[in-house]
Amino acid sequence: MEDVVVLWDEKVTLRDPVLVEGLPGVGNVGKLAADYLKDALKAKHLATLYSKYFPPQVYVNEEGVIRLVSNDLYYVKGGRAPARDLLILVGDYQGLSPEGQYELTDRVLRAAKEFGVRELYTLAGFAQGKLVEAPRVLGAATSQGRVEAMKPLGVVFSRTDPGGGLLGASGLFLGLGRLYGMEGVCLMGETSGYFVDPRSAEAVLRVLSQVLQRPIDLSALESKAKEIDRIAAKFREMEGKPSPEAPAQAREDLGYIG
Amino acid sequence: MEDVVVLWDEKVTLRDPVLVEGLPGVGNVGKLAADYLKDALKAKHLATLYSKYFPPQVYVNEEGVIRLVSNDLYYVKGGRAPARDLLILVGDYQGLSPEGQYELTDRVLRAAKEFGVRELYTLAGFAQGKLVEAPRVLGAATSQGRVEAMKPLGVVFSRTDPGGGLLGASGLFLGLGRLYGMEGVCLMGETSGYFVDPRSAEAVLRVLSQVLQRPIDLSALESKAKEIDRIAAKFREMEGKPSPEAPAQAREDLGYIG
Amino acid sequence: MEDVVVLWDEKVTLRDPVLVEGLPGVGNVGKLAADYLKDALKAKHLATLYSKYFPPQVYVNEEGVIRLVSNDLYYVKGGRAPARDLLILVGDYQGLSPEGQYELTDRVLRAAKEFGVRELYTLAGFAQGKLVEAPRVLGAATSQGRVEAMKPLGVVFSRTDPGGGLLGASGLFLGLGRLYGMEGVCLMGETSGYFVDPRSAEAVLRVLSQVLQRPIDLSALESKAKEIDRIAAKFREMEGKPSPEAPAQAREDLGYIG
Amino acid sequence: MEDVVVLWDEKVTLRDPVLVEGLPGVGNVGKLAADYLKDALKAKHLATLYSKYFPPQVYVNEEGVIRLVSNDLYYVKGGRAPARDLLILVGDYQGLSPEGQYELTDRVLRAAKEFGVRELYTLAGFAQGKLVEAPRVLGAATSQGRVEAMKPLGVVFSRTDPGGGLLGASGLFLGLGRLYGMEGVCLMGETSGYFVDPRSAEAVLRVLSQVLQRPIDLSALESKAKEIDRIAAKFREMEGKPSPEAPAQAREDLGYIG
Repeated sequence: MEDVVVLWDEKVTLRDPVLVEGLPGVGNVGKLAADYLKDALKAKHLATLYSKYFPPQVYVNEEGVIRLVSNDLYYVKGGRAPARDLLILVGDYQGLSPEGQYELTDRVLRAAKEFGVRELYTLAGFAQGKLVEAPRVLGAATSQGRVEAMKPLGVVFSRTDPGGGLLGASGLFLGLGRLYGMEGVCLMGETSGYFVDPRSAEAVLRVLSQVLQRPIDLSALESKAKEIDRIAAKFREMEGKPSPEAPAQAREDLGYIG
Repeated sequence: MEDVVVLWDEKVTLRDPVLVEGLPGVGNVGKLAADYLKDALKAKHLATLYSKYFPPQVYVNEEGVIRLVSNDLYYVKGGRAPARDLLILVGDYQGLSPEGQYELTDRVLRAAKEFGVRELYTLAGFAQGKLVEAPRVLGAATSQGRVEAMKPLGVVFSRTDPGGGLLGASGLFLGLGRLYGMEGVCLMGETSGYFVDPRSAEAVLRVLSQVLQRPIDLSALESKAKEIDRIAAKFREMEGKPSPEAPAQAREDLGYIG
Repeated sequence: MEDVVVLWDEKVTLRDPVLVEGLPGVGNVGKLAADYLKDALKAKHLATLYSKYFPPQVYVNEEGVIRLVSNDLYYVKGGRAPARDLLILVGDYQGLSPEGQYELTDRVLRAAKEFGVRELYTLAGFAQGKLVEAPRVLGAATSQGRVEAMKPLGVVFSRTDPGGGLLGASGLFLGLGRLYGMEGVCLMGETSGYFVDPRSAEAVLRVLSQVLQRPIDLSALESKAKEIDRIAAKFREMEGKPSPEAPAQAREDLGYIG
Repeated sequence: MEDVVVLWDEKVTLRDPVLVEGLPGVGNVGKLAADYLKDALKAKHLATLYSKYFPPQVYVNEEGVIRLVSNDLYYVKGGRAPARDLLILVGDYQGLSPEGQYELTDRVLRAAKEFGVRELYTLAGFAQGKLVEAPRVLGAATSQGRVEAMKPLGVVFSRTDPGGGLLGASGLFLGLGRLYGMEGVCLMGETSGYFVDPRSAEAVLRVLSQVLQRPIDLSALESKAKEIDRIAAKFREMEGKPSPEAPAQAREDLGYIG
């Protein structure tokens, strides 16, 4: 079988589209943000990518119907000028192996190139190893020009973070994207790294909304973040108590990443 | 060498055949069930699949003759209408790596497609982590229609199980099967996950017998299950005792999966 | 680069040759035996196999000259009838991954087929987990006929050993060899599994000498075995003593496999 | 995507060039030396190699601009006779897997062959497991002639070191280089193996400077080495003290390899 199988729903033409990527990772920030973005902008499904670089796994929904793990491309057309068309990549997994990461990223970029993508934004979390009250959005970009363009939007370019560079799809999309002549920025929401973090995703989307010049209603994400806040508070409160089950339950509610 | 080498015994034409898959996994339920099915229906050997995605291993029989590990296709023709022809996949191993799982599954599905397969049933165990007296058969299917068709046969579609989806061949055959236009159901016998479990395999075959509209004599499996019951009882009985060897022996008799 | 690079020294024609394989493994019995065989029969070097399935490693000899790890084919022509020509495979490593094992074995068998090989003997150790005073030679073969042919030579075909089958090159050569129409036997010398074991290699070669109908002078191996016996005795003697260095030194002399 | 993507900056013709390789490894000696050499000789960038055998990682510089991990070829033309042209390979990583090591090395050697390379020097560290005051330079070569040529330059060819051979790019370049008809030497600076070691890199470059018959100003490396000496002294001094942070800080300054 092909390393990456791409099934297209339809043939579509996009005008100077921007690619947005958000896959599972630290705090699931990138995935939360990209999934929310596609829903909020009522993006249409364009293609499904299956691959032997994903685990051999199917998900089963509540009705008992299976779905093979995948990455998926959505698109958004039109919108009020100067908003541009969008391609959004979401998915269940990043590639399992280094080779898989490269092959999958390259495959998506090749498709994006055919749609005329010249610019891309990758969404991710940045683990601080401690609870973060008001997450900042850190940035990394393909050029000095992109760095300067992001600073007025409140994106922080730190001399020290991320020190060891970026591992995974969000960095690789920028790195390989340059070989396709694309410019881009990785937007990293600060997060503890212990929980799924909608508040960090919200911070990332606030920046992205300005970048894309598209208003995004963030209220649903906001209430999800508040719910997590409540559970986290309960969790901290319970930590001193003797019951071992309660924190475990709260941990589950938090989508605890072990 | 080819990734998957398929050696065919003969050329055969099948009428609208159903594919049944049962490979080693949780409690070896799927393998037990599929092996029993092929014997009970006197299925004929059709093809052997060797692959570099299996371990580099040969088995040695009691006479000292070796056999390279493989997957094997059997077929059943005819039978009283409305019973349809069958293709049955059994084997020593699933693919060792994710890539191997995808390549092997795809190779079998490609062959199945050439035989005209449009429908498939995959057999597996579902680990409950505790002893199960009367195993239920849980289901997962490629469509809502298939889910509804299974419910009258007693197959349970739980909102919570399997929560994380299915890992391995039984799920992958359904997931990739859809790309070949096939519909199907995974039948999962509940099992502890600690032992090889013929009682769970029996439960799965009771359902499958109805699905395939072929009577299957389950008496041999039933007596095997009773034997395991006896050993399990002895095992429970011995657990409180000081002798450390006895449970180890019983554990071996149970085909304990460590 | 090619998965397996084969560099031939010369073009040679062999008459109905027998393939003998002995690569590193349990107690290094197979490697010791095959290396000794090629030296004792003054086999000529025929080909070197390099591969990305070996580790990225070079050995450095005492003069400081490097050599890339490899497998190597040697041949023996002529000899007093009824002795047949021989191809002998020795080497530094087996393939590191399952895929590598299959690819390398297949590559050698393909070459062997071109030389007209119809029969092969693979040499290995069988770990007993305890010291073995007089190692037996266990067997596994590609057919019942081969089993019967080996019994009069003292080869033991046990109903229980090896229970889980054979893992690695010695089994795989037989298993894949059948796909090339070759018949063969794996000769396994019993060994503790803790040390490099020349005595076990000697036992294997005594059988092989009869099989190949070629006398082999085993005196050098015999004296190596006696030396190991002396060190092992010293090792057992020292085990009760307080000095921690001494057993470590002895262990090294034994070519201890950790 | 291709296994190894090579992007050339320019087309250049070299006269009988010598290849020098220095990638990350023990004490980072080879990388330090090769990076320093290319800077000291004002080598020009010739090509970038990206590969799926590297990790899916980008580095972020202090301004926030990313760079995909790579290996890079530089060249040096001219110089006072008898100095020859140079090709220098530096990089962020060696290949992650054995296969990757072989594929990457082979790809570079193929390119080198096209430039007419017949001779190569690989730079590495040799871990002694203890602090080394005055590091010697150990050697390993592709032929006895090369060994003899190196001895007058103070290169040590030890009967025992490196006992188990060389693992990684520096050995593999020699081993595979022979298949391309190249002769070469691996120069290994002794080092503790615990720190990044500029003093060992300096020792290697002193030899290489003679080999290449090119003077290299080593003052910058010398002062770096002295700085490390100071930190190491501080580190040893602090080891007896109670403050847990201080040694950690010093360890970081040393580029501690954990």
